Amino acid sequence: MPRLNPLAPLDPPRRLLMGPGPINAYPQVLRAMAKPLLGQFDPQFRAYMAETSALYRRVFQTRNRWTMLVDGTARAGIEAALVSLLEPGDRLLVPIFGRFGHLLAEIGRRCGAQVRTIEVPWGRVFEPEDIERALRRHRPKLVAICQGDTSTTMAQPLAEVGPLCARHGVLTYVDATATLGGMDLPVDRWRLDVVSAGLQKCLGGPSGSAPITISERAAQLIYRRRHIEQGLQPPGYRPGPGRRIASNYFDLAMIMDYWSEKALNHHTEATSMLYAARECARRLVKEGLRAAFARHARASRAMVAGLKAMGLELYGDARHKMPNITGVVIPPGVDGERVRRAMLDEHGIEIGTSFGPLHGRIWRIGAMGANARLAAITRTLAALEKVLAREGYRLERGAAVAAAASAWRAR
Amino acid sequence: MPRLNPLAPLDPPRRLLMGPGPINAYPQVLRAMAKPLLGQFDPQFRAYMAETSALYRRVFQTRNRWTMLVDGTARAGIEAALVSLLEPGDRLLVPIFGRFGHLLAEIGRRCGAQVRTIEVPWGRVFEPEDIERALRRHRPKLVAICQGDTSTTMAQPLAEVGPLCARHGVLTYVDATATLGGMDLPVDRWRLDVVSAGLQKCLGGPSGSAPITISERAAQLIYRRRHIEQGLQPPGYRPGPGRRIASNYFDLAMIMDYWSEKALNHHTEATSMLYAARECARRLVKEGLRAAFARHARASRAMVAGLKAMGLELYGDARHKMPNITGVVIPPGVDGERVRRAMLDEHGIEIGTSFGPLHGRIWRIGAMGANARLAAITRTLAALEKVLAREGYRLERGAAVAAAASAWRAR
Repeated sequence: MPRLNPLAPLDPPRRLLMGPGPINAYPQVLRAMAKPLLGQFDPQFRAYMAETSALYRRVFQTRNRWTMLVDGTARAGIEAALVSLLEPGDRLLVPIFGRFGHLLAEIGRRCGAQVRTIEVPWGRVFEPEDIERALRRHRPKLVAICQGDTSTTMAQPLAEVGPLCARHGVLTYVDATATLGGMDLPVDRWRLDVVSAGLQKCLGGPSGSAPITISERAAQLIYRRRHIEQGLQPPGYRPGPGRRIASNYFDLAMIMDYWSEKALNHHTEATSMLYAARECARRLVKEGLRAAFARHARASRAMVAGLKAMGLELYGDARHKMPNITGVVIPPGVDGERVRRAMLDEHGIEIGTSFGPLHGRIWRIGAMGANARLAAITRTLAALEKVLAREGYRLERGAAVAAAASAWRAR
Repeated sequence: MPRLNPLAPLDPPRRLLMGPGPINAYPQVLRAMAKPLLGQFDPQFRAYMAETSALYRRVFQTRNRWTMLVDGTARAGIEAALVSLLEPGDRLLVPIFGRFGHLLAEIGRRCGAQVRTIEVPWGRVFEPEDIERALRRHRPKLVAICQGDTSTTMAQPLAEVGPLCARHGVLTYVDATATLGGMDLPVDRWRLDVVSAGLQKCLGGPSGSAPITISERAAQLIYRRRHIEQGLQPPGYRPGPGRRIASNYFDLAMIMDYWSEKALNHHTEATSMLYAARECARRLVKEGLRAAFARHARASRAMVAGLKAMGLELYGDARHKMPNITGVVIPPGVDGERVRRAMLDEHGIEIGTSFGPLHGRIWRIGAMGANARLAAITRTLAALEKVLAREGYRLERGAAVAAAASAWRAR
């Protein structure tokens, strides 16, 4: 760690962040955060909140009224969804295809749910039949699943999962932290009930705000558990008939009241993070969702072509690779951590390590948001080539950059 | 509400925020948030985290190792403290002297605690004997109390409360959201176990990050409840003997592991909010705590003198008024909300309304952080004078500003 100097002004080194996220924010998102603050009940601030809802409806491809922000990191959005949907004893099914599936199960257990899990080996995804079999067997109230799990770089197809759950009368929660803005997720068309994300991946913002959208069906269920704080209760108030949600901060009924025209006080909206979230969505909507998805797919093809041209083996089922992140098998004889350190110290480029069973076995290289562009990819490949060559790994100099540029141009 | 225009760039109107908070951030704090992002395990970022801990140790006047941030608004800090300290069935005592005392009690109930409360009429504070009597009667595990409750503008003296609780073997939690940086709070000297705050009051930053400090005694208790997520567990790992904390996001044992040298992955630290939190503390430490407290006290004297010179009646026990906020009784015949609207629309100044029993009865006028300065106070008083005069309220023109300036100079 560098020598500490708490009284020095902030002066972060410029890094190119090509890991699994956080990645570099778009410059206009950083600028938005430096805008002057407003009071939380200022009419202009309420307008910014309403605009943020409207923008995230477009990002989530939904007409859900309740589309808003949870004030915390992506994980805060997950916990808000699960603690508001699940009562103790409710059955939760989690199809696990990586570390973040384990996280969904663990949060479900902390909510007091009866958690049932199914698993596939890391590097693969589920078939709809796997999930249907588990639905019949476990009869859950809720299925919670990741769209993309950065730990394995796999993306679970969800087009059939939402309708399948709806046919079985089961609610769905999708953790889209790692994918929102980088690949298609039409929430209404796929009949998903609650979906949440973070800003620090494909949306190109800082961690610290969790966009969330809630179907009418889920909102009704949550609103049955509504309890207004003492001191804010209007005359004639009666609590909802459902069991009070175990968290105040993550009580989505209260957050809905705060975002509604009633503007009931709850937390104090994190002003600068809302500015960032609004700018992330505004930028994406202006680019166009289709264009952004295509750009991430194109970046993926370029990164894959470049890595393969170096002779590197990629991890996982190629048909289901997330577009924004690529797992690379660390070649025999190469010290993965020494390579990462050299990338950072000598080239200012961060690439990712791995968790659990993949630790020490693969690197995870991202190309998303502001970094889903050719220059970021070629800079990363050129640096990796230099570092790997010095490690004694045999490769053809220059091949990676040429292959990436060619794949990028091919469209 | 202004007409919505989600695709327009952010361009917030310039407001002078003289309510109970959020208030205008210091310009250098806004600039810090626009700095480039770093990866969460980048050595430089870990150094910024360690520096942030070091700075908040000075702000909290503590040697507590565990001094860090919870990634959410001030309320997130409260919930993290209570859910990590309290197990279902534990007894919690909350001395309530305003709305935020009710909030502590309600969060305690959601944690499954047996909550006991004592109350004083709004506008007053507790004597140590009141609290000691309740300690003897209820024998709680934890006492949770606000230092300042903005709903009533009262500040509870705590110098004797901490040692009193320690003598009874009771843990203390203090919500210092509204006061940290504006008045004295020597955490170690007063023997307080867990204290948390937000940035959006006297610290002069945006809402969205909650500094927290944890005594060794409380940390040991929390660490007994440590459970590492599946997929991150080191070889030979055994969970702590205590009951697992009901929240993953607010599990302070996990947040401690994340902030420790082990750097165990939990949430993804909200980079820009950490930059803001670091800058808030750095600015305060450079100004000096004593100087900042004196500046807030001076601003309070100036505001009080100005309001009184307008013939306005102040709310609550003057001996225990918070320095950073003043309650003003809305004079008979004056429409409080019309005044607030005119202040905002015609003068660009926000003053606060009130909650619950005080709603429609008092305004709350703040002068804290970047706004604890004479120019902000005189601008507010001059505008209020104009608006009140138009409402038909009789006052001596010019007296308020003169009295405030004179009180400010008197020191």
